[in-house]
Amino acid sequence: MRSDKIDHIGIAVRSIEERLSVYRDLLKLELTGIEELPDRGLRVAFVKAGDTRIELLEPISEDSQISKFLESRGEGIHHIAFHVDNVEGAIEEAVSLNLKPLSKEAEIGAGGTRVVFLHPKSTGGVLMELVEGHH
Amino acid sequence: MRSDKIDHIGIAVRSIEERLSVYRDLLKLELTGIEELPDRGLRVAFVKAGDTRIELLEPISEDSQISKFLESRGEGIHHIAFHVDNVEGAIEEAVSLNLKPLSKEAEIGAGGTRVVFLHPKSTGGVLMELVEGHH
Repeated sequence: MRSDKIDHIGIAVRSIEERLSVYRDLLKLELTGIEELPDRGLRVAFVKAGDTRIELLEPISEDSQISKFLESRGEGIHHIAFHVDNVEGAIEEAVSLNLKPLSKEAEIGAGGTRVVFLHPKSTGGVLMELVEGHH
Repeated sequence: MRSDKIDHIGIAVRSIEERLSVYRDLLKLELTGIEELPDRGLRVAFVKAGDTRIELLEPISEDSQISKFLESRGEGIHHIAFHVDNVEGAIEEAVSLNLKPLSKEAEIGAGGTRVVFLHPKSTGGVLMELVEGHH
């Protein structure tokens, strides 16, 4: 299993409109889409930055994962997602390296990707998502 | 002024050796170098990830910027650096967009680059570095 690039950087925001300015108006990065994910209680905006993307995560429901993060930590970087070629291999190797996957099997992510998260306590304070497949 | 990519993601760590594992051993990303920056009280490791890099920042002096961050927040993501074509233009445009540069003029960064930071209160909790030039 290996990674070839960062798939995206997830950033928790209270309002996409309010926080887009630095990416779109200052840095002139391309906003490639905004979608609502009612199942996850989120609105998500994607901004292209070279071969990776910024993902702005805005809660639209009080019980979204991002709501809890905003309450306890405030706005800021939520996770880094690495693109990998084999998420099952990643889970197995992570365990052998004493890293802590948050699930025993891959979960279905955005656009039919297969994903797993690694607990930040095992990675040095960084919530990491490993993503197999392309959006 | 515009950005074409993320130059690097800076991550505060207590020990580079301890935290390299997830990037090098799990994700098989290339460690491109480790250098000491005594002036800044830091040891820095660079890991290539697609067209961007992970920068692991370890304090070697108690009064480094990273020491304060580690004390108050613990290990984790410290800043995101965007590559820009004109850092003076960036400072001027940032002010006009109500973003808060931490210095009025560009500062000299690693490898002779010219950099400015934007205050996280103005960007949604993200300390942003804007970098002109290449390492």
